[in-house]
Amino acid sequence: MIEAAVSPYGEAIDVLRGAFGDRLSTSAALRDQHCGTETYHAAHPPDAVLFAESVADVQTALRVASDFRMPVIPHGAGSSLEGHLAALRGGLSLDLSRLDRILAVNEQDLDATVEAGVTRETLNTYLRDTGLFFPVDPGANATIGGMAATRASGTNAVRYGTMRENVLSVTAVMADGRLIRTARRARKSAAGYDLTRLLVGSEGTLAVFTDVTVRLYGVPEVISAGVCSFQSLQEAVEAVIATVQAGIAVARIELLDPFSIRAFNAHSGLSLTVAPTLFVELHGTQAGVADQANWLSATFSDHGGHDIAFATSADERNRLWRARHQMHFALLAQRPGARAWGTDVCVPISRLAECIAAVADDIAAAPFPVSLLGHVGDGNFHLGFLLDTSNLAEMSAAARLNDKVVDAALSLDGTCTGEHGVGYGKAKFMAAEHGEAIEAMRIVKKGFDPLNILNPGKLFADRAVQDENRPPDHG
Amino acid sequence: MIEAAVSPYGEAIDVLRGAFGDRLSTSAALRDQHCGTETYHAAHPPDAVLFAESVADVQTALRVASDFRMPVIPHGAGSSLEGHLAALRGGLSLDLSRLDRILAVNEQDLDATVEAGVTRETLNTYLRDTGLFFPVDPGANATIGGMAATRASGTNAVRYGTMRENVLSVTAVMADGRLIRTARRARKSAAGYDLTRLLVGSEGTLAVFTDVTVRLYGVPEVISAGVCSFQSLQEAVEAVIATVQAGIAVARIELLDPFSIRAFNAHSGLSLTVAPTLFVELHGTQAGVADQANWLSATFSDHGGHDIAFATSADERNRLWRARHQMHFALLAQRPGARAWGTDVCVPISRLAECIAAVADDIAAAPFPVSLLGHVGDGNFHLGFLLDTSNLAEMSAAARLNDKVVDAALSLDGTCTGEHGVGYGKAKFMAAEHGEAIEAMRIVKKGFDPLNILNPGKLFADRAVQDENRPPDHG
Repeated sequence: MIEAAVSPYGEAIDVLRGAFGDRLSTSAALRDQHCGTETYHAAHPPDAVLFAESVADVQTALRVASDFRMPVIPHGAGSSLEGHLAALRGGLSLDLSRLDRILAVNEQDLDATVEAGVTRETLNTYLRDTGLFFPVDPGANATIGGMAATRASGTNAVRYGTMRENVLSVTAVMADGRLIRTARRARKSAAGYDLTRLLVGSEGTLAVFTDVTVRLYGVPEVISAGVCSFQSLQEAVEAVIATVQAGIAVARIELLDPFSIRAFNAHSGLSLTVAPTLFVELHGTQAGVADQANWLSATFSDHGGHDIAFATSADERNRLWRARHQMHFALLAQRPGARAWGTDVCVPISRLAECIAAVADDIAAAPFPVSLLGHVGDGNFHLGFLLDTSNLAEMSAAARLNDKVVDAALSLDGTCTGEHGVGYGKAKFMAAEHGEAIEAMRIVKKGFDPLNILNPGKLFADRAVQDENRPPDHG
Repeated sequence: MIEAAVSPYGEAIDVLRGAFGDRLSTSAALRDQHCGTETYHAAHPPDAVLFAESVADVQTALRVASDFRMPVIPHGAGSSLEGHLAALRGGLSLDLSRLDRILAVNEQDLDATVEAGVTRETLNTYLRDTGLFFPVDPGANATIGGMAATRASGTNAVRYGTMRENVLSVTAVMADGRLIRTARRARKSAAGYDLTRLLVGSEGTLAVFTDVTVRLYGVPEVISAGVCSFQSLQEAVEAVIATVQAGIAVARIELLDPFSIRAFNAHSGLSLTVAPTLFVELHGTQAGVADQANWLSATFSDHGGHDIAFATSADERNRLWRARHQMHFALLAQRPGARAWGTDVCVPISRLAECIAAVADDIAAAPFPVSLLGHVGDGNFHLGFLLDTSNLAEMSAAARLNDKVVDAALSLDGTCTGEHGVGYGKAKFMAAEHGEAIEAMRIVKKGFDPLNILNPGKLFADRAVQDENRPPDHG
């Protein structure tokens, strides 16, 4: 009770405890687990954690929160990357992980409706016998609700799209407890505002999702994975541009710099050539995949690629992609004790080489290890900083390099975040990216959440909160 | 001046005339041309028509409209189908057709930015030498701005998506004259609310578009068109379901009933078997298209299809699709003097046969000719009524049948409009389709357009306006 007593929301928490018993907790351990501290962002634990088990629970929680003007931070798997879960103004972490039922799989329609707390791995395991799969794959085993809330994407997006394209409908509880469903299950509709797309990517600031209907795809007849190394990043990027422009529907096309390959080899026991490298994956029929592989071999060679090798056995392929998915840990292993900070810009593909070149010298000069890898088929790449977060000079230099890559992307008609979202880590860039349009976003926020209880301090730069929470700034 | 004098917006019109000279007109002929009278909806001419020629013109018009609380109805090619252009409360038709410049084609990035008044045919003609094309094809030579505003789709959507998927960004003037751009040109972004998708499909009720950035695609190496007739609609629909489920990426797959085929033959001079028929188009490489054609031949045969014939010559193919695009006129020719009323429901594909069956008896019993055709790969189909609009019994029966097909679609988790939009013709179905979510849409409308000057009376059922304007109701 000590925690509740010192919180300005003690009364609200007491009401919730009355309604939910021990599913409402103020234990320090649980609160610390619910502020998303895997990243470099400062920890801001909530005042309490509530484990919702039904839509009605979420509605009750939001009604109480409205009554007491208590912030509510929706919580899925806790794998978000820009401080989305930080309780900047205290309040309630609304844990949705127990909303974990798969409500419907419509095999004929290639869609599934799942509760918000179902993870993508759980869904794909469930689908195994249907011949269908859900492609969006941000690496982490995130919840479908969390992925929808942050408009997640990942390695498959170049072919299958992001959560923007793959969410058909969302059921959500609004700030005052009202329940809405954003769309019917029809594949297309022209019936009014696209509330689905408005809520996808809203990061818990407009409503709390309770279930999500997503698109599914047939598991391709043949999957083939290829690896090709290049003389320079520039050549590798040009090979990607040529591929995208030719309309070759690669399922994945990932760039890794030599530092990443070194980390990758060390962590996975593989022995790839240490050079700028593209990983590709092809999905299709036997003939279609063979066609594409031939095209890629020729095109990559034209751009200075060598050692291109395609593997169609599931074993080889899985080994490669499992290792790719563990990249985060492979990189961390390069500097024991470090924390990672990933930049996330995305630019039109024609500007990709230019954007990387704009920060090449800064990467070389950085006082900490930097990897470069990304979903380059979309024009999206990450710099991965390995940081001693207690070293202010490093943190400052990291913030400067992050600013610089964002500035470069914005000057090339790109975005400050291709897939990680804004949280509070990127809020300071929103005005530069959106200009007057940020006011249109504020109109929506104010209309949906007039009391500002839904994940307050996120998405929009709030100077007081930002100053208090942002990573150390230039010098 | 007589027209302006009797308008409650005479003063606003005088101000606009002062600013725009003879680009502001109150002539009866122009006003009548600007209320979208191609459909069954009652004509509601605006008080004046303004031909905008720049973004600044649009901003000025909206500032004046705000000052005088005068309704503004954005106008593109005038081809919308649900009364979107009716000046239900008078006001200004803001004609954007002179905003007709192609601002940029980024061949490397597969995108183009065009002013809102550029038509899709103009864009595709311009692109001819680039090897790229813009696929969204609603039939009419609509403007890109209008297509974005109504979330248009059409025959190609099953492969290339609708305007929802193909608009990357919109530049728009808000009700108070502020200019916003909804997104950067990067292919994906997680930076805040998806204003692009919020504005696409907003039917001029949230902002006026001045330019639109759209995705382009490489013209496929091979295009092949096929025609296959079936014993029954049911069998044809099942063949479509099997195709979609197998993930065969047909570029178009269209269903036509015997009545439509008869009209089609008469109008085009072709002599197709009069039977339920599928038109398909395949895009891809030589090998890929051959693969798909073989698969379709076998699958269609399994479902009772016969006479399947594929044509790869551009001549044969163009003849077929040109004729398909003139279907509207082919149908009208079946009943000289009639007007067409097209229903537009869309359901999950597994429910398509059921939805058609639910209204089969009503179609047979209708006191006017009814065609059935549609973009069945998306679960979207149209009934085409050929009506003597002066015959109240016919109009009543048409309204009843429209209601019935919408009710059937809603009961099958479908939508009242797959692609035509709401306008005021479908506004009465919005509550049944969206439930509480309609309130979330109202929040957005109120925030963006607090004075309710942007295309008022559209999208949302306003009882007073609806009663006055809707088509004759049941008996």
